Amino acid sequence: MTPTLGERVLAGDPRAIARAISLIEDEDPASAELVRAIFGHTGRAYLVGVTGPPGAGKSTLVDRLVAAFRAGARAVQTSDAAAPSRPAVGVIAVDPTSPFSGGAVLGDRLRMQAHAQDPGVFIRSMATRGHLGGLARATGDAALVLDAAGVETIVIETVGVGQDEVDIIRTADVAIVTLVPGTGDEVQALKAGIMEIADIFVVNKADREGADRLVSAVDANLALHSYASGEWRPPIVKTVATSGAGVPELVSAIGAFREHSRGVQTSRRKARSEYRLRELVAQRFMSHLEREVLATGELAGIVDRVASREVDPYTAANDLLTRALRR
Amino acid sequence: MTPTLGERVLAGDPRAIARAISLIEDEDPASAELVRAIFGHTGRAYLVGVTGPPGAGKSTLVDRLVAAFRAGARAVQTSDAAAPSRPAVGVIAVDPTSPFSGGAVLGDRLRMQAHAQDPGVFIRSMATRGHLGGLARATGDAALVLDAAGVETIVIETVGVGQDEVDIIRTADVAIVTLVPGTGDEVQALKAGIMEIADIFVVNKADREGADRLVSAVDANLALHSYASGEWRPPIVKTVATSGAGVPELVSAIGAFREHSRGVQTSRRKARSEYRLRELVAQRFMSHLEREVLATGELAGIVDRVASREVDPYTAANDLLTRALRR
Repeated sequence: MTPTLGERVLAGDPRAIARAISLIEDEDPASAELVRAIFGHTGRAYLVGVTGPPGAGKSTLVDRLVAAFRAGARAVQTSDAAAPSRPAVGVIAVDPTSPFSGGAVLGDRLRMQAHAQDPGVFIRSMATRGHLGGLARATGDAALVLDAAGVETIVIETVGVGQDEVDIIRTADVAIVTLVPGTGDEVQALKAGIMEIADIFVVNKADREGADRLVSAVDANLALHSYASGEWRPPIVKTVATSGAGVPELVSAIGAFREHSRGVQTSRRKARSEYRLRELVAQRFMSHLEREVLATGELAGIVDRVASREVDPYTAANDLLTRALRR
Repeated sequence: MTPTLGERVLAGDPRAIARAISLIEDEDPASAELVRAIFGHTGRAYLVGVTGPPGAGKSTLVDRLVAAFRAGARAVQTSDAAAPSRPAVGVIAVDPTSPFSGGAVLGDRLRMQAHAQDPGVFIRSMATRGHLGGLARATGDAALVLDAAGVETIVIETVGVGQDEVDIIRTADVAIVTLVPGTGDEVQALKAGIMEIADIFVVNKADREGADRLVSAVDANLALHSYASGEWRPPIVKTVATSGAGVPELVSAIGAFREHSRGVQTSRRKARSEYRLRELVAQRFMSHLEREVLATGELAGIVDRVASREVDPYTAANDLLTRALRR
């Protein structure tokens, strides 16, 4: 009997993994069935979230991290002759929605070339047109696929610093915020709301002028909080991703945080589950409303009436909710 | 009789505007009532969206734009002695969620000092903890308040380049994407998914090395599209916001786009109405589910079961939906 897609994912087949993530990205109905099938086999991978403003060198940094994780994983995997081609490290690069094409603008074509020939590394860009947390849901499901496939470490990289991206990264097991000196405007980088999600700060391009000033600025910001005894104070790691300098220290910091947070990790994973469940319920309800409650084109008519100020959006929303719940 | 908050907003009272936006930001139930009361008086303001990566100098640029709009508006307003203190220009600066404090990290304290004493300019930072488009909803409602108060031009500035921020900006009447040379990594800026939402590109800090290279890169990207005759091709405006150079050209470009898009604007406003309606319906449904359908703590229990892999999120979401619709 031909194995199902879920079975092939569980066996670690890279082509099945790629196919599964495409179904998720396309919001194909089969993707829900797939997640159902694999879900019981997930929860073992460690999720590393990396975010920061564009131009911070995140891609190169992630590249270095992957190499480091890969070196660690390879030592283990050589003793497992049964699954030589199962990827050990996964990368999900989240690109903000491209509203017109719906696709990653440059995607993985320009990046991660160093690992292109390594079957132990699985790399994927994600983008989606969906509303209501579609990107977060797709990212979460893609991580589940890699997790079920036996990937040990999954790096999730977001290029944005928006609310969705912050939500994605803060639900990872460890959240790394990458900053860069010399944009002449450290305050801008710091105000982006990403300070408070960091478990680890990276000051990349640390050979640039202003690196120490940026480290001091971040440190001063951290000093505003009072950390309780035993509470994790995010370390600030200086790296030069292009040369690899500082990357071993970053890997150590990730390891230290992982050790420190063995208990905390459970609450982080609960937060992740809650976030995904909420997004999913809301999305399902909207599908139900459009497909089962409203006639074709009816929502567009209501939107027209809101746009022309005949009805306010709160009244319209309440009417729609009442209709959906009455059936 | 004491005038209601809505009446005071309609009269252009800056303190009422500030109070109304605070209600919206706090997701106070009274805010829905307020939007209902003022909604019929909205739809006249022109919404200018400004986005771009951190460090692009957006705040300074917006500052300059406000001064230019203010100068234009003042000429009109001096003849209207009846409402001398009604703001003519509004600024809503959207900060990504700060998950722990829920507040704008630096907010408007550090910015817009030039207009602090000008009653004709109303400036407000927005941040929210809410899920499911809470930030977009709050921003949209705050714009409605300013619109109802008679504000002619509303600038919405987002610091992020994430999905929510893209959604906010693309529903403005004109979307301005600000880029900056010399981050050494133009590709990163371009891949951020913000290329395709731009009606106008700004290359700010255009006195920096690499400005012309960035202009060429954007232009080359635009050349990949084939623009039909009469179709708007986004112009690329070079500015130095700190000195004001290029700002008159940017104001002209906004005027030209506004003229060009008189018909298109309707569909843009429909898109904005649809986006807000969808967010609102989804949010209302989730509130209904938690308050009317589930017992206190029940959602947390379901989340626990998902987190521990007893049930997959799709099955859990379907169960919740079925229960909500059965009543």
